Order: sequence, then C-alpha cells, then structure tokens
Amino acid sequence: MSFTQVAIIGLGLQGGSIGLAIQQYLPEARVTGYDLDPATRARATERGLCHTVSESAEDAVASADLVIFCVPPGAMGAAAAPLRDAIPAHCLVSDVGSSKKAISAALAEALPDHLVIPAHPVAGTENSGPDAGFASLFRNRWCIVTPPEPCDLLKLTSLVHFWEALGANVEIMSAEHHDLVLAVTSHLPHLIAYTIVGTASDLEDVTQGEVIKYSAGGFRDFTRIAASDPTMWRDVFLSNKDAVLTMLQRFTEDLTALQRAIRVGDGEQLFDHFARTRAIRRSIIEEGQDDSRPDFGRSDHDGAARGKTKG
Amino acid sequence: MSFTQVAIIGLGLQGGSIGLAIQQYLPEARVTGYDLDPATRARATERGLCHTVSESAEDAVASADLVIFCVPPGAMGAAAAPLRDAIPAHCLVSDVGSSKKAISAALAEALPDHLVIPAHPVAGTENSGPDAGFASLFRNRWCIVTPPEPCDLLKLTSLVHFWEALGANVEIMSAEHHDLVLAVTSHLPHLIAYTIVGTASDLEDVTQGEVIKYSAGGFRDFTRIAASDPTMWRDVFLSNKDAVLTMLQRFTEDLTALQRAIRVGDGEQLFDHFARTRAIRRSIIEEGQDDSRPDFGRSDHDGAARGKTKG
Repeated sequence: MSFTQVAIIGLGLQGGSIGLAIQQYLPEARVTGYDLDPATRARATERGLCHTVSESAEDAVASADLVIFCVPPGAMGAAAAPLRDAIPAHCLVSDVGSSKKAISAALAEALPDHLVIPAHPVAGTENSGPDAGFASLFRNRWCIVTPPEPCDLLKLTSLVHFWEALGANVEIMSAEHHDLVLAVTSHLPHLIAYTIVGTASDLEDVTQGEVIKYSAGGFRDFTRIAASDPTMWRDVFLSNKDAVLTMLQRFTEDLTALQRAIRVGDGEQLFDHFARTRAIRRSIIEEGQDDSRPDFGRSDHDGAARGKTKG
Repeated sequence: MSFTQVAIIGLGLQGGSIGLAIQQYLPEARVTGYDLDPATRARATERGLCHTVSESAEDAVASADLVIFCVPPGAMGAAAAPLRDAIPAHCLVSDVGSSKKAISAALAEALPDHLVIPAHPVAGTENSGPDAGFASLFRNRWCIVTPPEPCDLLKLTSLVHFWEALGANVEIMSAEHHDLVLAVTSHLPHLIAYTIVGTASDLEDVTQGEVIKYSAGGFRDFTRIAASDPTMWRDVFLSNKDAVLTMLQRFTEDLTALQRAIRVGDGEQLFDHFARTRAIRRSIIEEGQDDSRPDFGRSDHDGAARGKTKG
C-alpha cells in the first residue's frame, strides 16, 4: 500500500523538500501543503513546493492518507490538536522532528484517535524557510522511524517505503534511543557551534572583523551549523533536555581533561587523543556520509587545482 | 627585490604547497626542499614539489635567499639550530607555524645571526604529508606576518610580496596579537572538535557505528578538523598555551550559561543566542572566506539539484 495523498503542515526546509521530492520521485501521489505564515504559503505556491498550497490546515489534510508535521519541535502539539476532526480516521500521522520522545508524546496527545508513527530524516542544511528546500535533500541520508508499540505493521511498512522512495535509508529504533544518538551526533555539535560563535563575537581583545577575516583557520566550519534556524534549535534543546545534558556532561569532562593536559604540558596525552580521532573521519567517508574531498570540496580557492596537483 | 632561491624545510601540506605555488606563480625563482623523513623526500621528488629535493638540509639552504621552516611548531628550533652556519648570512628566515610567539623565540634563539620574520598563512586542509599540498592553497587566504621590532623594511616588503605572489592577502601584526586571534579562530575550534569526536567515540549507550551513520546531523563537520595532523596540533596547543586557555575559559563560561538555560527551560535565552550567531556566517561569506552554497557545497547527494530547485 502506498500513499496517494500526502499533506505537509509547515513548508520550510523539510516540508518544502518533501513536497518537491514527492513530485519528483512519487509522481503518482498528490501533495497538499499548509503553513501558518501567509508569506511562506505564497512563496511555496510560487516555487511549486506542493501541487496545492491550501489556505487552511483543515483543507490541506481533508483527503490525506498521510499527514507529515514539519513544524518546529515545540509547535507540533499546537499544530496537530486543531486537526483532530479534520484528519481522516484512516490517515497516518508522522513528522520530521529532531527529537522524538517529546514530539511522539505531543502528537499522541493532540491526536488520540489517529495512528502516529514519528520519523526523523537526518538531513538538512543551514538554510531554512520556503526557499531552502530541494528534492534531493534526503538522498543517501538516513531516516529514523520510531514506531509506538504496538504498531500497525502495514502502515509502518508504507511509511518506510515512502522514505525509501524519497531516497533515504530507513532505520527503526525506539524514541528513547533516537534521542540519545541524536544528542551526540547532532544536538551537542549544534550547541557547541552556537556557543563558540557566540564566544568569538563577544571578545574585547579580538575584534569581530578579525574573527571573520581569519575564520578559515577552523572557526568558519562552526559558523555553518550555528546559522541554523534558531526557533527549531531552541525547541530541540528544550524537548531533548535530558539526553543533551547527559552528553554535555561527558563532553565537559573530556574537555577539562584536555585543558589540564595543555596546562601541564602533557604532549603525549594530547597526541594520543588527536591521533585516534582521525579514524572516525575515515569511516564517515567510507560509509558515504561525507564528501571525501579535502575541506569538504569547498570552492573558495581554485578547487580544480587540487585534483590536478595530486598524485 | 624578490627572492631567487627559496629553501623549504619540511615538505608536508604547507611546505609542499609553497613549493608547487612557487613553481606556478614565481617561475623565475628556484626552489629547493628538504624533509627529515626519507619517504617524504622520495614522494616530494616524485610529485615535483620542488625543483630539487636535497638529501641534507645544509644542501637545501646553501644558496638560499629565503628559508621557510614548515615543520611542526615544536620542531622549529631543532630544525633550525644545526643550520646556523649553513644558511647564508644575508638570507631571510621565515616559517609557517600556527603559533607565533613561541616559534619566533625558538627561531631567534636557534639562528641568532640571521634576520627572522615569522609568518603564518591561515590556510590548510585536514590532510597532511607530501601528498596533501597543492599550488592554490594560499589563494584568497590571509597570511599574517609578525615582524620583530625593529625590522629590515626591505626584507619585510620582499616577504610580503612573496606571499602576495602566491595569492595570499598579507596582514602585519604582533606575534602576541596573532596568538590571541588564532586562539579563537583556529586553536579553540580544533580543540573542541578533537574533544567532541573523542567524546562520541567513548560512549557506551551509543555505538561508534551509530555515530558514524547519523553523523550528517552536524557531527561530521567536526570530524573534518579533528582529522588534522596530531603532531602539529599537539605543538600548537603547547606553544600557545596561555591564549588557548584564556579562550577556553571564555568558551566554558558561555557553554555553562547555555547549559543552565537548557536545564531551567529558558527558551528565550536560547533563542536570543541562536539568532545572533547567524550574522557572523553572513559576514564570512560576504568577505569571501567561505563557500556560500548550503552545506559547503558538499556533493554527497545530488548537489546540482539544489541550484535547480531554487528560485
């Protein structure tokens, strides 16, 4: 069974990309969309993110057999609750939120009559809004599905097939485990990037102009993810508080150990630590989860020359 | 006055790139090179990193009017001291080290009869060794020169012109200020990246396989700089200890404040912090210090489609 009418609530990077991806990879399905913001709806119509952008969420979901909530984690419950009567009884409800325990609970409470199978495509860019989406966002990326127990296996299979059709590889796990895994692979990195970019902006001895000028020394890498949508990230940290604080505690311990090694001049400890982190990069590239070219293949200086002088 | 014979001691990413850049952008100059490691010398010869790769450092510097030390920060003094008699008296000595106060002192002590003008091209990739270099590494990047006081202005001008010929923009500042600026734009980011990659490898509840698999959520960005040369980075932290510890203290304070905001659920503070860090990213892109394409223009999924679906 595949979905024939998909409704997307929230037309930012994720929602817009899903709309475009459905039109490209599932041409037999219809996709309707809605966004609370009239300007976003207008832009979504212009870009053709959906076949139809509705003027009300009720209209968008009226004939859907799959509704996907693509709003910030903290807005899921409020977006879903008014649609309790508008969403058809047989319709599957899902989402794309970056934390799963809190969102699962919020959607289940808002839509007690519907089957909710939460999902999280681990894909994105630093851009947000209705201009940010593109059809290939999910290709070769993982999508984690966190079904409730028990779960309608037919509907679960349909949702898995849906994401696979959009190009994603699907993994199934519990919401609890998802939140722990993502706390380390996504939430903590964002928190740290936001922190260091803030720290660098607030110095007295080094001007912001200097920070920008010499950012190629490593800092600029952090500014990319620190340019992500602030509303979404506020909600991620608030909705995955426990796992984030746990990981942060581990990080702080490790940082304190390295800080001490620097203070006492323990070169051996520093070297040992720095040597073993290389292997992870290699694995990420081998598994196709990052660009193998040096510097992510950035084109800010003559990238083509790199290949030529190699070998 | 321009240099006619440049000697490069150390043929890794920096030394190799300088050798290739001289051959490409300063065809009238001769470049000789030496590396302590015989395998690196052999590879440097194969790749043609220099016109001549010498079998001894003394041979490499014998007729030089510019010697550039491109060894790890902690090895500068030991690499330079034996060459006190071999380097011609009129020859200018420079380096490419990432910290400047400690290296300036080490080179001045090792070569008391020579003029030493330290420099630091803020350019690199995560790769190292004789295969990593490419001629365009310095194009559109900043090179910071930290002259002693007083300084021979003719020689200083020649060094500035040399780096400009290789495509860099040159800035002059004190070694002290350099070390503070780079502590925030480069050293602290590397320390944090090394830390989080280590933290993620050591978890019990989340496997290393999961960390790799879901790294596209943000973590993978950190693995790139945490794949940098461990010897060099050990030396950077040991040789710029004070500035790194100062910046680390600021970072830790800011992280603790955000941690507290998460713990008490202060969404407003989180939002305000996350909203203001976007502006820095914009400035970095406007000043040509990073790739403006989303996700650094990574090609891991169909990059071309991004442009096409936009607008």
